Amino acid sequence: MDQVILLISCPDQKGITAAVTDFVFRLGGNIVDADQHTDKQDNVFFMRIAWELEGFSVPREQLGEKFRPLAEKFSMAWELYFTDEVTRVALFVSKHLHCLNDLLFRYKAGQLKGKVELIVSNHLDAEPLARQAGIEFLHTPVTPATKHEAETRQLQALKAKGIELVVLARYHQILTGQFIRAFNKRVINIHHSFLPAFVGGSPYAQAFQKGVKIIGATSHYVIEDLDQGPIIEQDTARVNHKHSIEDLVHKGQDLERVVLYRALRWHLEHKVLCYGNKTVVFE
Amino acid sequence: MDQVILLISCPDQKGITAAVTDFVFRLGGNIVDADQHTDKQDNVFFMRIAWELEGFSVPREQLGEKFRPLAEKFSMAWELYFTDEVTRVALFVSKHLHCLNDLLFRYKAGQLKGKVELIVSNHLDAEPLARQAGIEFLHTPVTPATKHEAETRQLQALKAKGIELVVLARYHQILTGQFIRAFNKRVINIHHSFLPAFVGGSPYAQAFQKGVKIIGATSHYVIEDLDQGPIIEQDTARVNHKHSIEDLVHKGQDLERVVLYRALRWHLEHKVLCYGNKTVVFE
Amino acid sequence: MDQVILLISCPDQKGITAAVTDFVFRLGGNIVDADQHTDKQDNVFFMRIAWELEGFSVPREQLGEKFRPLAEKFSMAWELYFTDEVTRVALFVSKHLHCLNDLLFRYKAGQLKGKVELIVSNHLDAEPLARQAGIEFLHTPVTPATKHEAETRQLQALKAKGIELVVLARYHQILTGQFIRAFNKRVINIHHSFLPAFVGGSPYAQAFQKGVKIIGATSHYVIEDLDQGPIIEQDTARVNHKHSIEDLVHKGQDLERVVLYRALRWHLEHKVLCYGNKTVVFE
Amino acid sequence: MDQVILLISCPDQKGITAAVTDFVFRLGGNIVDADQHTDKQDNVFFMRIAWELEGFSVPREQLGEKFRPLAEKFSMAWELYFTDEVTRVALFVSKHLHCLNDLLFRYKAGQLKGKVELIVSNHLDAEPLARQAGIEFLHTPVTPATKHEAETRQLQALKAKGIELVVLARYHQILTGQFIRAFNKRVINIHHSFLPAFVGGSPYAQAFQKGVKIIGATSHYVIEDLDQGPIIEQDTARVNHKHSIEDLVHKGQDLERVVLYRALRWHLEHKVLCYGNKTVVFE
Repeated sequence: MDQVILLISCPDQKGITAAVTDFVFRLGGNIVDADQHTDKQDNVFFMRIAWELEGFSVPREQLGEKFRPLAEKFSMAWELYFTDEVTRVALFVSKHLHCLNDLLFRYKAGQLKGKVELIVSNHLDAEPLARQAGIEFLHTPVTPATKHEAETRQLQALKAKGIELVVLARYHQILTGQFIRAFNKRVINIHHSFLPAFVGGSPYAQAFQKGVKIIGATSHYVIEDLDQGPIIEQDTARVNHKHSIEDLVHKGQDLERVVLYRALRWHLEHKVLCYGNKTVVFE
Repeated sequence: MDQVILLISCPDQKGITAAVTDFVFRLGGNIVDADQHTDKQDNVFFMRIAWELEGFSVPREQLGEKFRPLAEKFSMAWELYFTDEVTRVALFVSKHLHCLNDLLFRYKAGQLKGKVELIVSNHLDAEPLARQAGIEFLHTPVTPATKHEAETRQLQALKAKGIELVVLARYHQILTGQFIRAFNKRVINIHHSFLPAFVGGSPYAQAFQKGVKIIGATSHYVIEDLDQGPIIEQDTARVNHKHSIEDLVHKGQDLERVVLYRALRWHLEHKVLCYGNKTVVFE
Repeated sequence: MDQVILLISCPDQKGITAAVTDFVFRLGGNIVDADQHTDKQDNVFFMRIAWELEGFSVPREQLGEKFRPLAEKFSMAWELYFTDEVTRVALFVSKHLHCLNDLLFRYKAGQLKGKVELIVSNHLDAEPLARQAGIEFLHTPVTPATKHEAETRQLQALKAKGIELVVLARYHQILTGQFIRAFNKRVINIHHSFLPAFVGGSPYAQAFQKGVKIIGATSHYVIEDLDQGPIIEQDTARVNHKHSIEDLVHKGQDLERVVLYRALRWHLEHKVLCYGNKTVVFE
Repeated sequence: MDQVILLISCPDQKGITAAVTDFVFRLGGNIVDADQHTDKQDNVFFMRIAWELEGFSVPREQLGEKFRPLAEKFSMAWELYFTDEVTRVALFVSKHLHCLNDLLFRYKAGQLKGKVELIVSNHLDAEPLARQAGIEFLHTPVTPATKHEAETRQLQALKAKGIELVVLARYHQILTGQFIRAFNKRVINIHHSFLPAFVGGSPYAQAFQKGVKIIGATSHYVIEDLDQGPIIEQDTARVNHKHSIEDLVHKGQDLERVVLYRALRWHLEHKVLCYGNKTVVFE
């Protein structure tokens, strides 16, 4: 059953929940899910409400207009989605293919709501996986000299395909500010450490060096400050002195797979709200 | 800030969320928390809604009456709580004191909302802990011959103290149907296994014998069918061939402590709803 | 560096460790790893010792003969492996391909020590994955009438390929005693529950019905008693009332992937010792 | 059964395991446990070997002398312990008593091998717990002006009691270099974050600010560089946007309890070896 999903954030005050549920109900919407949260520290109210498209009396193209007065009354920031309009996704990858393989398998199994339109890589290793999955593959080699040109080609392709979300599934190039601004809060990365520990390159080697007893993986939105964007999901696993760096890498890849998958799924199901440099995830 | 908490379950249909939030809002209630869930398999709707007592226009003793028409319209089962009226609790224990020690420490630290009025035991081991905590201790030795008499004394004491919740913090006597019916869905037990595996006595020995690689603990409401009541919380921990039964016991006790604590806390915060033989926990 | 691996179990007594390490050392072996365990309940001693093949003075075909007197002195059961002689593996699967896809990806990435020679299925769904991986695919449809015939074909193919280990990567046919005896302790299964809870079919539906707060997966050697063989590895994940049966299935599949992979890897690295109906895993 | 425990580290080379087990065996020792590890990166060999005191032919006061030639041959660093000589421990604490309460309960239940001789605090909050446990309490208030004097009093008391291990069970004073050098690698701290993330003060507030989805606790040996000493144990727990800083504190305290307990237990059972700034834990 297709749904309308409304994401809201605004200064907290009396009556928001009642006003929003009332709005939906009066227009014939059957509420399927309603989740809310108040950050008492910053006095911000967050809400995710979903109702059935069927039986709702307002045509989708007029819904925004209809909601505007209420939104203005409460000074809301809001986003509106329809589950029959799926997000168009591009997957970026370099040479480590475990996340890509995992995401493509889940995608084909129907466990991801988006539409994967493009796989982009600075290497050729991922091409066979792209071909098997029947997804277009764009090869954009990157050298210091060609980085700007490569990004330009990528951005053109993303635009041509109408891509709305970029997933860095172990893509080992740092995106420029130009790229990040073009996809503000719409680039999801997987970092192979428990952030904020071990920012930057070779986090498993850093973890080995430090002698930690737990390793982690972190999926976050990309901002211009490297590995500092809002965290969507993290997970950890125990290690011990017997694990070599290579063992950490393999064990960590199992974390990376599920952490990136969960973050991506929640984003595609419109369950993630950013505020400041944090996220609310209505999972 | 004191709150009113309303727990609802009813057949799912259009408009429940809107009707309830509207009811609260019109009477001046500032909604602090609203959580809902629909079991699509059984078509049952669940809701927990909390609003501030201050500013609410209906006196607490009239609130039930005021809500009744709405409840009847939707065929709701419902419970109403006020956070300034705390639940009166009795802790039952035998010879293993780790859960009791843990709960008392948290209680004194203000991490449990109830009021512990009584500690009951069929042994004397817990008496010093009770004394240190300044809580009345009732010693009811149990033999096959005196079991009925012991339970009668316990029930009298519970009644005299106005106890609303009994916590079996490793109490190793099986309660009779008479007792359980008197405290229907108001007796919480901690079982030292991952139920439904290893029902009954000596679950760690059973786990050792079976060679499992994970052990667990389960907190559940007590029903007449042994270890079969609605599960509130569970947790697990890894073990391996090096662990003796005694090691499993010690490792398991760490699980028991936190699992029972969480279940108890959620119950006291009115976050648990039973239906059929399952629970909805709005944590 | 290739290694010799010796697995030992015997009644515990003084001097075993010293005798075995001494044996290896005198013959020029550089011990790389030595792990031991004593089950004090049953008084059984277990050991896994690995040394470098290079520099060892006894040719591999004479090593067993050379070790026999020591083994007899301590009444040892023992197994001898050389890491340059990899185990020949067949993967069995039905219609759920997540484990197969995962194992094949890890296999191609060099994370599994065996040699996958054959993929067997009672359905055709896995054929494309087999083809992409360049592994022979054997289709043996099974109906009640053809079950015996299908198993006979399977056993012939396993024999022809010299298969030493069968992995049931979500193969939904119960093997007959004849098959299991032919591959005694050499069939590894993944069961989609935390055994011994939820034996048999539809464990996720059973888990949903029971209202557990944790689900699990178990990898074990197959014996004639269904889902009762020695457990090699287990893992668990939290769930709650919001999860539908389908959600449990998806969340559980993430467990199944890693649990089966770990069990298989440890078996292929000769780190698993069976005794009674339990395992010692020298991970 | 009392045991001799020998901890060894040395440059890796052929024959160490055989030489050590042979040494024990020839002198009549029944090896109960032998664990080894080779750090291939740094080419260092580590071993923990335990044998029964009964039946061993060398008196304990002569054992070191007897072992010396072998130790010198392999350039070993080594430590020798007898399980009937328990470590004398002092517990330091400030105002958060959850770790202290937990350790004392386990201590009285026989789950910790050492002998707790002294509880030291810069506040008076812990005094009742010390009294109930029958352990001497030393109150050393600390102000910037009296810090040196307080430490001097502490060191005198530690010396007078023959303390061998100091446990900082949430002691909120930074020890001076003088103190740390006097108890080199013999001060264990619990830090309430997943190090190396959130060094220093208020780690839960830092974690809240950062919006992490997992919190942690770390137990480590104290070195002069704040929160940078060798990590003994860590653990983590999931959190989400609903958790206030206070919730993180409470949830984290559950981690702190078990993490500090495990680190302390392993140290007291002589299972921890330091090298560089890391640990090998033969658990």
